[in-house]
Amino acid sequence: MTLSDPDLRNSFFVTHKKFQDNIRTNRDISKIFINFARKIKTNETMAKPSIPKGTRDFSPVEMAKRNYIFNTIREVFHLFGFQQIETPAMENLSTLMGKYGEEGDKLLFKILNSGDFLSEATDEELASRNTLKLASKLCEKGLRYDLTVPFARFVVMHRNEISFPFKRYQIQPVWRADRPQKGRYREFYQCDADVVGSDSLLNEVELILMTDEVFHRFGIRTCIKVNNRKILSGIAEIIGEPDKIVDITVAIDKLDKIGLEKVNEELREKNISEKAIALLQPIILLQGTNREKLQTLQSVLASSEIGMKGIEELTYILDKVENANLRATFEIDLTLARGLNYYTGAIFEVKALDVQIGSITGGGRYDNLTGVFGMPGVSGVGISYGADRIFDVLNQLDLYPKDSLQTTQILFVNFGKTEEEYCIACARQLRKEGIRTEIYPEASKMKKQMGYADGKQIPYVALAGENEIAAGKITVKNMSNGEQKLLSIDELIALFK
Amino acid sequence: MTLSDPDLRNSFFVTHKKFQDNIRTNRDISKIFINFARKIKTNETMAKPSIPKGTRDFSPVEMAKRNYIFNTIREVFHLFGFQQIETPAMENLSTLMGKYGEEGDKLLFKILNSGDFLSEATDEELASRNTLKLASKLCEKGLRYDLTVPFARFVVMHRNEISFPFKRYQIQPVWRADRPQKGRYREFYQCDADVVGSDSLLNEVELILMTDEVFHRFGIRTCIKVNNRKILSGIAEIIGEPDKIVDITVAIDKLDKIGLEKVNEELREKNISEKAIALLQPIILLQGTNREKLQTLQSVLASSEIGMKGIEELTYILDKVENANLRATFEIDLTLARGLNYYTGAIFEVKALDVQIGSITGGGRYDNLTGVFGMPGVSGVGISYGADRIFDVLNQLDLYPKDSLQTTQILFVNFGKTEEEYCIACARQLRKEGIRTEIYPEASKMKKQMGYADGKQIPYVALAGENEIAAGKITVKNMSNGEQKLLSIDELIALFK
Repeated sequence: MTLSDPDLRNSFFVTHKKFQDNIRTNRDISKIFINFARKIKTNETMAKPSIPKGTRDFSPVEMAKRNYIFNTIREVFHLFGFQQIETPAMENLSTLMGKYGEEGDKLLFKILNSGDFLSEATDEELASRNTLKLASKLCEKGLRYDLTVPFARFVVMHRNEISFPFKRYQIQPVWRADRPQKGRYREFYQCDADVVGSDSLLNEVELILMTDEVFHRFGIRTCIKVNNRKILSGIAEIIGEPDKIVDITVAIDKLDKIGLEKVNEELREKNISEKAIALLQPIILLQGTNREKLQTLQSVLASSEIGMKGIEELTYILDKVENANLRATFEIDLTLARGLNYYTGAIFEVKALDVQIGSITGGGRYDNLTGVFGMPGVSGVGISYGADRIFDVLNQLDLYPKDSLQTTQILFVNFGKTEEEYCIACARQLRKEGIRTEIYPEASKMKKQMGYADGKQIPYVALAGENEIAAGKITVKNMSNGEQKLLSIDELIALFK
Repeated sequence: MTLSDPDLRNSFFVTHKKFQDNIRTNRDISKIFINFARKIKTNETMAKPSIPKGTRDFSPVEMAKRNYIFNTIREVFHLFGFQQIETPAMENLSTLMGKYGEEGDKLLFKILNSGDFLSEATDEELASRNTLKLASKLCEKGLRYDLTVPFARFVVMHRNEISFPFKRYQIQPVWRADRPQKGRYREFYQCDADVVGSDSLLNEVELILMTDEVFHRFGIRTCIKVNNRKILSGIAEIIGEPDKIVDITVAIDKLDKIGLEKVNEELREKNISEKAIALLQPIILLQGTNREKLQTLQSVLASSEIGMKGIEELTYILDKVENANLRATFEIDLTLARGLNYYTGAIFEVKALDVQIGSITGGGRYDNLTGVFGMPGVSGVGISYGADRIFDVLNQLDLYPKDSLQTTQILFVNFGKTEEEYCIACARQLRKEGIRTEIYPEASKMKKQMGYADGKQIPYVALAGENEIAAGKITVKNMSNGEQKLLSIDELIALFK
């Protein structure tokens, strides 16, 4: 804190005077300093309200960009027949707990019960300070942690109203009590599309086509990567190391960086047998076209039933995708192992080609979405778009269309009460034509009004003084090049069409 | 609960058998029953997940309608130069507490601190069970209660980035631990537009024009009512009863229903003096056009400076609004006294003319939005649209445009793998033209596929079997009249244009 604030400075001098006048014992001194510290704290609280760490305010420009992202995705979702649902921010903790592992349970934001929140806790329990146990007595609701569990709960609750296969999308914030860091927030949006109640691989194909369309609309060049959990299971089966599949994919992923020797070394360090490493060689070195990769896999995995099933699935997807002339690159990538505990078939990931950033979209097929809520047999496949990362990519590549900002198109300068009436009438006509129009609300200095137009990036300013009103016209200034023109209202409307 | 579930029934018989075998003491009996009750409870939790009371899931149809509402409002907001912001769901409790009165503090949802949430509470404090005090030790965050306080906090935090006057809108959910009842939820959306940092009455006029445009687009016939806090203060001043202004407006409001005699009686019951009641007569009986009302008020309030200021403001607004040819009825209504503790100038309210429902929109001018956060001198005027009530009005009057549902426009029936390829190619062409298209993902029975189209209200179904493929055409069935036509892809595209 600095002493630039006059009130604060004053209070310091008063305190200092008191200090000199009254200084007697150590106790006095400490009391004075404590009071002073309190004063500073109060003053700072008053002067600087803040928001919880890991959360964000979104400014008008950021919101316009976010709306552009969500609207683009939403439109493509509709084009492919997905329908939106929303679920409440708060779910019962019984719905959320135990679904995200022990670590996840800790990261749930829990909501204190209303009223006498201690009524369920005994004196002994309070005295014990067992926070895990007490949390469940004090709280019965929590904030949603992702969109998948609320979706599963939704499907079970509304099973009789839903026509399956159910193609739903959901764009809502989720909350996690993670340690905040760069790019990781405690409140962030997820944007999920899933098809549940259908095992058909056509759903996988449609999700890939949809994703291609989304990024084509954004103008982001991407590589859509695909893998299949069954192929990974087949590999594990062949080499007899079912628990090491993550270690193996992590090591293979490093081939380009560290070379074959070091990859094999790393596999050895992970206690993978020499025999298994030998069997893995064609998989580590897997390259060529997608077809060539599938051929290699076919010979390596010939004896694994599940592996061959995975190859069959991937072949079907590749057939369809090749016919569809994707704008994106499409690549079979065995190192894709996201959500391995969860996905049972296809695994997807999307990388932006022109920006160094993690995956911007991911998904896959899963079995048994709703079993945990007592409704077995509902499988599905889904994809999740990372809004925050897409936001960053579009910013870095400067790909936001100009009109996505939805800013005001023209501002009428306010010269005073006499001219106001004329401006209101003009604004009415412009708005009738869908032109976003403002009238500056007060007859402030010209510089201030122009500064306002600049601040909001308004491209045109309208000037209607005595002369313009007499002529029934408007002087229009182009804010980017300073050019001024005297126009009729019809000419002005034409300017925006 | 019923015993229709076989597992549950089985468990009942096992329990019953145990009961017969082991019955010895009362303690045994009670133990058995407690276990059985627990089993039922577990079973029910498994079978029937639920959501917290007062919260809602929104189905695809409800979401489409809500999106229509929010998109319509949003588009008009942009037309008038308002820009969107968003604030986090969680605010620091120091931001929220004390802003909504003592009752409001109790209705805040508080979020349990992460980690060791008891660390700030001493053993004595825990033992004392003082919930109010303990809540502040256990929680430092809460869910936002409205959009106004977070907006004030936003303005203070971002004062240096904002160009004033700041025209912002915000459409986000808020949470209140109110007792849930019909039409009152614990999570609901607010939809607010405010202009801050300008005292100009042109802002009031613009908000009225904007509101007129919003309801015109919805097709809802409305009456926009307006009042002015300064006129109410003037009345209180004239009759010397400054504290009775709410009692007076409530009584006047009943004139149509109970007649002048009973209104005066009610005023007497509220201890308003005979002299004051006599002075109030022209105000109680105030009628005629808006101009006539202003004239009457002008003579009654002639001696009240603040009252005359209110009349001046209202006259300015009326001048401008009369020139603007509103589609809505516009009415000066002195009984409008919403937010009387808060509003300092204009007060607005919108009533739907064709539906019996409370006000669907309201707002007004306020002083000193941000003073509580240490930034004095920021006044403003705002309006809040009641999304839930507008939803009900549009439903009751059946005013949703057909295309607002954004449902899939055509579904391709799936006849099997051979025909699939052809359907995918057709779907690609339709989607390229922006036509929302689905392919049923599996070759299920025709009845099931048609049922799916019905369930999603898809207007057209495409059939492409062997014959169609050979002819390069598609049979298209109109789902509302059953008509079938054989069309080329271009003819099909033309059908939707």
